Order: sequence, then C-alpha cells, then structure tokens
Amino acid sequence: MIIVMEPKATQEQVEAVKDRLVQAGFQTHLSVGESRTIIGVIGDKKEMSKVELEVLSGVEKCVSITEDYKLVNREFKPEDTIIDVGGAKIGGNHLAVMAGPCAVESIEQLREAAQYVKASGAQFLRGGAFKPRTSPYAFQGLEVKGLEMLAKVGQETGLKIVTEIMDASAIDAVCEYADVLQIGARNMQNFYLLKEVGKTNKPVLLKRGLAATVSEWLNAAEYIMSEGNFNVIFCERGIRTYETVTRNTLDLSAVVAIKAASHLPIIVDPSHGTGVRNMVLPMGRGAIAVGADGLMVEMHPNPAKALCDGKQSLTPTDFENFMAEMRRTAVFMGKTL
Amino acid sequence: MIIVMEPKATQEQVEAVKDRLVQAGFQTHLSVGESRTIIGVIGDKKEMSKVELEVLSGVEKCVSITEDYKLVNREFKPEDTIIDVGGAKIGGNHLAVMAGPCAVESIEQLREAAQYVKASGAQFLRGGAFKPRTSPYAFQGLEVKGLEMLAKVGQETGLKIVTEIMDASAIDAVCEYADVLQIGARNMQNFYLLKEVGKTNKPVLLKRGLAATVSEWLNAAEYIMSEGNFNVIFCERGIRTYETVTRNTLDLSAVVAIKAASHLPIIVDPSHGTGVRNMVLPMGRGAIAVGADGLMVEMHPNPAKALCDGKQSLTPTDFENFMAEMRRTAVFMGKTL
Amino acid sequence: MIIVMEPKATQEQVEAVKDRLVQAGFQTHLSVGESRTIIGVIGDKKEMSKVELEVLSGVEKCVSITEDYKLVNREFKPEDTIIDVGGAKIGGNHLAVMAGPCAVESIEQLREAAQYVKASGAQFLRGGAFKPRTSPYAFQGLEVKGLEMLAKVGQETGLKIVTEIMDASAIDAVCEYADVLQIGARNMQNFYLLKEVGKTNKPVLLKRGLAATVSEWLNAAEYIMSEGNFNVIFCERGIRTYETVTRNTLDLSAVVAIKAASHLPIIVDPSHGTGVRNMVLPMGRGAIAVGADGLMVEMHPNPAKALCDGKQSLTPTDFENFMAEMRRTAVFMGKTL
Amino acid sequence: MIIVMEPKATQEQVEAVKDRLVQAGFQTHLSVGESRTIIGVIGDKKEMSKVELEVLSGVEKCVSITEDYKLVNREFKPEDTIIDVGGAKIGGNHLAVMAGPCAVESIEQLREAAQYVKASGAQFLRGGAFKPRTSPYAFQGLEVKGLEMLAKVGQETGLKIVTEIMDASAIDAVCEYADVLQIGARNMQNFYLLKEVGKTNKPVLLKRGLAATVSEWLNAAEYIMSEGNFNVIFCERGIRTYETVTRNTLDLSAVVAIKAASHLPIIVDPSHGTGVRNMVLPMGRGAIAVGADGLMVEMHPNPAKALCDGKQSLTPTDFENFMAEMRRTAVFMGKTL
Repeated sequence: MIIVMEPKATQEQVEAVKDRLVQAGFQTHLSVGESRTIIGVIGDKKEMSKVELEVLSGVEKCVSITEDYKLVNREFKPEDTIIDVGGAKIGGNHLAVMAGPCAVESIEQLREAAQYVKASGAQFLRGGAFKPRTSPYAFQGLEVKGLEMLAKVGQETGLKIVTEIMDASAIDAVCEYADVLQIGARNMQNFYLLKEVGKTNKPVLLKRGLAATVSEWLNAAEYIMSEGNFNVIFCERGIRTYETVTRNTLDLSAVVAIKAASHLPIIVDPSHGTGVRNMVLPMGRGAIAVGADGLMVEMHPNPAKALCDGKQSLTPTDFENFMAEMRRTAVFMGKTL
Repeated sequence: MIIVMEPKATQEQVEAVKDRLVQAGFQTHLSVGESRTIIGVIGDKKEMSKVELEVLSGVEKCVSITEDYKLVNREFKPEDTIIDVGGAKIGGNHLAVMAGPCAVESIEQLREAAQYVKASGAQFLRGGAFKPRTSPYAFQGLEVKGLEMLAKVGQETGLKIVTEIMDASAIDAVCEYADVLQIGARNMQNFYLLKEVGKTNKPVLLKRGLAATVSEWLNAAEYIMSEGNFNVIFCERGIRTYETVTRNTLDLSAVVAIKAASHLPIIVDPSHGTGVRNMVLPMGRGAIAVGADGLMVEMHPNPAKALCDGKQSLTPTDFENFMAEMRRTAVFMGKTL
Repeated sequence: MIIVMEPKATQEQVEAVKDRLVQAGFQTHLSVGESRTIIGVIGDKKEMSKVELEVLSGVEKCVSITEDYKLVNREFKPEDTIIDVGGAKIGGNHLAVMAGPCAVESIEQLREAAQYVKASGAQFLRGGAFKPRTSPYAFQGLEVKGLEMLAKVGQETGLKIVTEIMDASAIDAVCEYADVLQIGARNMQNFYLLKEVGKTNKPVLLKRGLAATVSEWLNAAEYIMSEGNFNVIFCERGIRTYETVTRNTLDLSAVVAIKAASHLPIIVDPSHGTGVRNMVLPMGRGAIAVGADGLMVEMHPNPAKALCDGKQSLTPTDFENFMAEMRRTAVFMGKTL
Repeated sequence: MIIVMEPKATQEQVEAVKDRLVQAGFQTHLSVGESRTIIGVIGDKKEMSKVELEVLSGVEKCVSITEDYKLVNREFKPEDTIIDVGGAKIGGNHLAVMAGPCAVESIEQLREAAQYVKASGAQFLRGGAFKPRTSPYAFQGLEVKGLEMLAKVGQETGLKIVTEIMDASAIDAVCEYADVLQIGARNMQNFYLLKEVGKTNKPVLLKRGLAATVSEWLNAAEYIMSEGNFNVIFCERGIRTYETVTRNTLDLSAVVAIKAASHLPIIVDPSHGTGVRNMVLPMGRGAIAVGADGLMVEMHPNPAKALCDGKQSLTPTDFENFMAEMRRTAVFMGKTL
C-alpha cells in the first residue's frame, strides 16, 4: 500500500502514521517529495485491511497496490482450471453450451426444449425453477416442482442441469436436483449465500452483478473458494450503463480481464446480456472469439408462449443455426463443442 | 400498454396480436399510421405482465404506460405515511436521524457512541453486527454478540436500534434485538429476504441498490408490502457512476422522485453516499433541503481506530456540529428533529 | 508519481526505469516489498506527463499522486474568486440567478421573460441563440438575430446576458452581444473553443460534460485560464447515468468537490439537471444548501408554446414561487440574492 | 408519437391536446383506458418535433415511436454502403484496417510505422496531428507540420491517411493533406463541426462520444449526411462506465445495433476501447466476429518512446501477430483484408 500525506502534513503526523504501521508489524519506506511525503507499506495485505489509516490526521489517501483475492488469482495457480460436471467439461479447450428456457413452465415444455438442446450437441440444460422478478406480481417460477422436472428431464436425456438458487434455505433441494448451482446477478454480493454454496461440492456458476466491477466479481468468487469449493465458473451477462438500445451492455472485455486475472473458466450469456434476439448469434460468436469458455443461451420450444423473457429467446430453428455457427467458431478458436 | 408493430407488419400479423389480446380479456384500440400500426391495450396491468407479446411476429416493441407497483403508490394512498418506532417517528414533519458506528466493535465503543447520539437529540442508534464486505478476508462483524450489545445499549439509552440483516436465517435473532431491520444495498433485490421481512411486523429500512432505478426500488418495497408489512422506509445511499471523486454519486433527485411516486418516507445516507467525511455535513443539509425525512450517518467515538469505513465517519466533535446544522435546517424546512 | 513494478520484474528492469527517470531530471525512491518493487518519483508534474513509463518493460502501472491543474487549484489561490459582471457578482456571499427561456424565439417572448426575471430580483438573463440539438431537423436557434434580441433586451432592462457559444467562429459576434459566454456540456472538451474563449476577457460559464469527471472539468477550466482568462464559473447540469426517472442525475456532491478543489464559483442548473418541472424548486433549494454560488433556471412566459425543452420550463407563477423560496434559502445560507 | 394523459386529466384537457394536434396538421386516435387516456399521433416526425406537447396541462408523457434520423436509416437504403477511399474500400466484404501511432512525432517515426503498416497489408495510416488532451499542459500534437508529414508518407507508401480534425477552422488544411477526416469522441456532438465536414466531399470517420447512445450517434451522422456528405464511417471506441479495469467499456453490441439500424459501415478501435495492450488482439478478433467492417489500431515503432498513449500501443512484433490473426478472422467471416 502507498500512503499519500497531505501537502501540509507535519513531521509529527508523518511519524505518527509510521509508528502506527510499525506497531502493526509492517515495514515502511518514506519518499519526501517537493509537495508531498509518500509512505510505502510492505507486509501482508490481509493484515493491512484491518488497519484504517485514512482516518489518521495528515493522511490524504491510501492507494492499494495489490488485489485482495488469492485463491482465484492466476498468480496462485497459473494453469487453467477445467471443471468436470459428471463428464461434461468447462474450461481448457472444452466449449460448454448451457441452453434452455428462461423459466421451467411444464414437463412438456422442458422435455421439448431438452430434445433440441440434446440434438444440438450441447451438454447442459438450463431452466429457472426460482425466478428473480422485479415485480412481486410477475411469475415467480414453479419452485420445487420445477426442480423435480429439471432432474427428471436431466435423467432422461443425460443433460447436466443448471439452475438458479436464490436463497440459502433452498440449498439442499437445489443440490439434490441440480448439477450446477447458478448464483444470479442480483445475488452476486449476497455474501451469506456465497459462503453457503462454498460449503457444498457442486460447481457454481457465478453471474456478474448488474453493476459489479471485475474486481468485486473476483472477490465474490473468492468468498466461495475460501469455504472450500474450488469449482467456480464466471458468467458475464452484461452490465448496467446509460445505453438503452440493449437491455444491458455485454462487456466482452471482461472475459479477457478475467482470463488474465484468474485460472477459473468464464462463459457469456448473450441472451440476457443484450435482451435482443437478433443479437444473440453475433454476440455469441464474438464471445467465443474473445476467448470465452462457453455460452449460456435462452431457447424456448415456443417463445410466443413463454412466461418470461420471450423477447430474447431463440426459437428451435434459430437455435439450430446458432449452434452450427458456434461450433464453426469453436473450431476456429481451436476448441471443441 | 402500447404495442408498436413493425413497418412491414401485415394485416394478418396485426389481427393475430389483436386476437391474442382479446382472448386474454383485454380491450384494444388500433391506430393505423403512415409507417406503422399501433395497438393500445386496456386492462389489468398484473394480468398483462403474464402475456408475452413482443415475441409475436410483426411486433416491434411494447411500451409500458403504467407502473407495476400498487401498495407503495401515492395514487393508492395520497397522504404521507408516518412510521412509529416505539414512539420515535419517521415521516411527516418528524426528521429522523440514525447515527452510530459503521460496525459494532465492542460494548465500550458502542456505549460511548450512543452517549453522543443521545446527547445530540437523535433517536436512533445504528451499528452493524453483520457486515457485507467485498473481500472475505475483511472484518465481517461480531454477529449475534454485536446484536446483543446493540440491544443492551438500546435499553440503557432508550435509543431505537437499526441494524442490517443479511440473510433470512437471521430474522428471528435480528427481530429479537433490533427495532428497525435494515436491508443493505447489495440485498435490495434479494427477493426471498424481502418477502421474509415482509412477514414480520418490524419497520424495514430499504437501502437503494448500487445501481437500482427508482422504479426497481419502488418494486422492491412492493415485495415487502405485498406480504403485509407496510412499515417501509427508503434510504438513498448513492448510486454507481463513472465518477471517482466520491465513492458513490448521492442522487438527491431520487428523494423528490420517491416523494412524488410514493407515500412512504425516505431518508438519506450522506456517509456512504459520498465516502468523504468533509461532504457529510453539506450533503446532509442538502438532503433535508430537497425534502428527505431523515438522515443516516456514521459516527465513531474514535474514527482513527474504526475497523471499517473510518474515512467517512464523523468524530464526536464533527457530529455535534453536524447535528446543530441539521437541526437548524430542519427548522428551516418546518420540521422537528 | 508512483511506479508499481510487476511481481516478476527483474533488477535490470527496475534499474532501467530508474535510469530513464534520472535522465529526465527526476528524483526517485525505491521501496522493495515482498512481492513488488515500487518507485516513487519526485519532480515537476508537467514534465512528468511527457515521459511515458507504463510502456517500459517490467512496469505494471503508474499511479498519479497530484493533480494536473494548477491555476484553478485552491492550493494556488486559497480565497474564493468573486466574478464581477458589470456590477453583478458571482461567488462569495453573492447568490447569482440566471433565468430565461431555453431558446430565444422572438423579441416579444424575450422581453416578457425579461420582465419577470427583472421583477424577481435576478440579475442575469439567459437565452439560447445557437441551440445544440440531437437531431439536425430540430429547431437550431435564431443565431445572430437571437443575439441582437438578447443585447437589446439586456440594454432595456440592465440584465446581464448569458448565452451559449457553439463554435469559435462565432466568438466576435457573441462577445459583442453577451456579458457571459456559456460553453455547453457537449463542448466541455472542445479544447480549441476553450482556448479561444480563454483569449477573450469575457466571463465564461463552463457547463459540466455529459459524462465528465470532476477532474476533467477542472482541467477544462485550466485550458481557459492557461490562456489568460481567469473569469471562469462552473455549472453543474447533471451527469449521464443508467437512471431514467430524471433526464440526467444532478450531482450536488460535485458542488462540494469543486468548492474544495478550486477557488472558482460554481452554480447549478436544476432545469436541465432533472428535466422535470416539479423537481426544479426542491433541487434548486438543495443546490444552495450544499453551497452553490447560484442557479441557472429555465423560465418561459408561455411554456406551452416553447420551441424546446418546454417540459422543464417554469411558468411565470412557478418562477415567482421559485425565486421567493431561493431567496429564503439564500438567507438561510448567509447569502444575498 | 403516443401521448399519455395523466390519470386525472379532464375531458377538456384531452380535447385541448387533440385540437392542438389537429391544428398542426396531424391525425389523432384516442384510446380511453381504465385509468388513463392515450392519444396516438400520426404524421411527419420532423414536423412533430416542432410541437411541444408535454407542457400542455393534463399530459403525463410523450413516447416517441419512430426515430429522428432518415438518411442514415437502413429503411431508407437497405443495402450496405461501401465507401471508396481512392481505391481502398470500407464496408461490404472489405475489412479495413487503420493503423499507426497515436500522435505524429517525427517524419522518421511516421515513416517507420508506415512501413510496418504497409507490410502488413493494411491500407490506411492513422496518426494524430492535432491531439485532444485532458490537460492543457500535455503534448498537443505537431499540428500543420504533422499534417505535412502524414501527406508525405502517404504519397511515399500509397497508404490512405486518416487524421483527426478538432475545429472547423482547420478544415481546409486537413482536407488538403488527409484522405479521411476523423471526428473524435469529444466532438461527436460538436454540431457546427459536423455540419462543416458535411459540406466537404471527404469520407468522415465518426467516433462514438464518451457517453453517447447509439441513437445520438446515428443522429450525429445524420448531421453530416444532411449537408450532403454521404461518406460516413462509424467507429466504436468504448463508452464510459463505472468499470475501471479497462479505460473504457468496448461495446461490441453497438456494432450489431448500428448494422441493423443503418446501411453505413462501422469499424472498432480496440486500442482506445480498452486502453490495455494485451486486450487489443482478442477484442479486435471479437469485433470482426460480431460483424465490424474494420479496425483502427495504435501501433508505434517504439512504444517505449511514445509521447502519448504508449500503454496501449502495439509494438511492431505485436502488430505483425495482430494482423495475421485479423486476416485469419476476416477469412472466417468471409471477408478480405
């Protein structure tokens, strides 16, 4: 850490800050400049976060030099992590596609969707049993019944089930029925929930928060890993900006940033990330081209009857074209889908 | 709702949309323009949200005309709601101040802080027992021990206790010890938690999400009210923008927007809202001047020893000046503090 | 400046950076930490911006410690600047109000508006002769004819004229007719225009860019001052965020930030800053309460006939109430209007 | 346009709005709903923008249905526009690459850079003679001398010259020396400059504003086209968001949005768009994969000596790898580079 003293800071104030740091077990280095004195602090970052220095008199600001996260860090583990979900792999040269309806509506709807997903060669079926909705009066999902349908269709088809968990109280139920636990954007900093899924051994798909920085997102993954669960997959799903032509602004540079900072895999959701059906295919192709390890995409056997997010769902025909193009792009990138 | 058809939409497509709406029990009105046909839809909004129209062929977009929320709406209850917390009131001409340390650190620290708060004439003591922190390695709060300290100091001083609840599993404990349940910014759309606090009879302080719109915030309050708990207080705490001179951008116009849209009271947190100690007083004064019903402010008996957020905490002397100025501003606005 | 070396930086790389700095005439201080080496650089900031260090091998990042601007800095001139516009003052305990229609439409409209402005006790008449409009097909202003009308009405009433200049080619004309040159938000970083108005001796009202940081805004003022014109007034007019309930998000904390960083006066435009007529009065009051030196407000003698921005314009009656409340607030803040 | 009346609007207010519209020559359609009356307005959009309706009593809001721009609209011209710059083409299946240093520093630097650009097969040399810099004390460019160097090197190599114009006063000079006029992000809504370049016959590269919406950007192009210059090329260069891991957030979905809305070509600048050298190649590949018509990229023969933006400039070796990968991606997308 770097401590920048105010221009008018006295010698006594500088000494007081230095003393506090030395007492706390850190080494310090002073740089006395023309207008300001700067103190470099050396020692364990974790310990440093416990000492509040900005409140000491004469301190103008503290500048953090190193990141807080450790287990997610590529410095800690240089090679890519490949996550194995019952044989279906995510990371390395395995391109994973998670497809299915936004919400589970009926066993028929799910079964029909699953057939298209299976036929396309994708290995994961996604579908929401618990749905986070802005209004309390919108459809909230079939809950446990939806989980049962997912598990049933998973068994019938061999597809791995990805579904959202919205509260720690549902962990046992979701773990029983699902293969991958999804943490939604609105819960990315629900720290209690992160710790609880960290205590399970299920792979966790961690969506980026609506307005989360890459650094906060890495720290959210660290919450999960610090409890012992190392199977975390990031999912970029667009961030909130002033732009309204898309529902969110899909930030593909975050894929590159995450791959540089961490060894964990990252996939992209072009359906929620754009909110526009015609953008799903080109942005999916772009996601693979920047280096994503997979895609999550909404597909509905009959989008005109969808109970939620129909606007961005692919039809079966769209989905077939989409998968053909994603396979072609995977090959271009030296990956297999 | 207004449905805008594509320029090339055929007569058949228009009819198909109309038929779907009539079947669903809505009235429709057609406007055939030069380049586009527009369909006005009349009926119950709640029912409308169940029909997905944007997926029908020929539909360009749907424009929502009325809001989803009902119980929070000032159209539903025109007069201001005044919330009574064991005699301490929030709303109407009662200006509420909630002050105290960011985190409960010890009974001594809390007792000392409480004495300053009590002496200032404020009626609410705030302090975190469960702390949401970006990094899992930062101080997470004293948890139940912290709650016990809060309750003890509340009994000693008569101050009402405001503290954050981070997960539904802690509801019984927090309800036992606290007078007001605080929902933090990161949980504003933790819909499960909203519903659970909606089942209690405790007043709920609902902080605005990091990047929540006013409309989403009103809907989050609707989640609580729709479960039967009508005692909701909004708290503006700054939104995430590109600006870095402040930690967040305190959006005082949201106070005016909320007062216009809803009958519920709203307070402002200039400490987290700016993250800069020298801004707390002027922005607190500005908050009252735009019409806020109160303030939440961080005060620490010894900020140089604070375990979190020391940078924005007021010292006891700062706090005394702050309260004198807030009282003067309250009088200016015809309110009592 | 602080230079942070990469974790794997070699001794040679550190030496190379140091040598480059020493050659360029700077002093350096090394801090060798556990995982990183940090180099403190001491010397003239202006010279430092000419050396590109982040491109040297082994350098991870450069952290700037001091600001680039100098003449606008309160460290350079601690006391408040008071700007005198032909006897009408801005800054110190003088609260300035600039009111009038968004666009000049006719001499009658302007004369009528000016009478209300004059009667209210405000000293500045604002009105656009050149209008920046998103679409080329929207009303673009009366241009030089509008300037002539402004000057005429200024002479008749003694009100000082504030009007926007959109391009350097119009400087002579605008300087001939106006008392204060307004730089609009879209031109805040039109550096050529900034330099040109810096060569005149007219006071300049510098609106904040749509998405400008406080730091960029201070630097924009530095462009004007560095050419010799020290009469710069900042005008906060809302920033672009994801929120849509207001046209922009009025950032009142920027007023506090500017007052702390600079000696120059700052006013607030609650009309463009919110885009909502009912918000103008409360946000104007809030602006004065946080410490603004004045307000710019849209008033139209007949807003229902306004050619632009009618939605946020005050009617004559609104304006009378507004001014009464602003005067009351000025007194509360120890200022005169 | 759709006019939504307030819930309490009277019959007289509705009639007054209708009368105003009919007088102005529009057709109207009424939809009388349970809680609100809605008026559909049919007629010429351009005329509509001249009538202010939101100020009429009883009007809650006006919702625009169609876009303001016309000449840029794909509805107006369905097939892709291909722009021919002295034989070098942009659009259709021609992938254009514009490469070179951020700023022109000397004839030697430029000549060296141009050799690498030429060798790579790119057809455009970019370099700034006039540089927009946040601080007035940073390097501002070689101005006319820089233009002369660009023209000279252009003649020597046959590369087409792309350079920024910052003010209308420089139009003659820039037109004399350059093949493509670049409008920078800070000038995207410098409407005077847009009109002036619209009067020339030079192709214009229109960068997206720092925080411009896609709709504002299309309107900015309309300003140029409405003056008669139809050779406009969009350039996505990242937007301003809360994220700090990149300098800007490169919005690749804007490429898809622009291609859908307009017939004009669009290229992407991954250098400024990310500000991080290691992101330039993957984001460039992503840009082509989503459908961009080309790339603008910073390359410096010796980035360690660059006078500006060295951090994101590619070295000659980086650039060679970059071009090989872009060519491979162009082929994948059925384009030629």
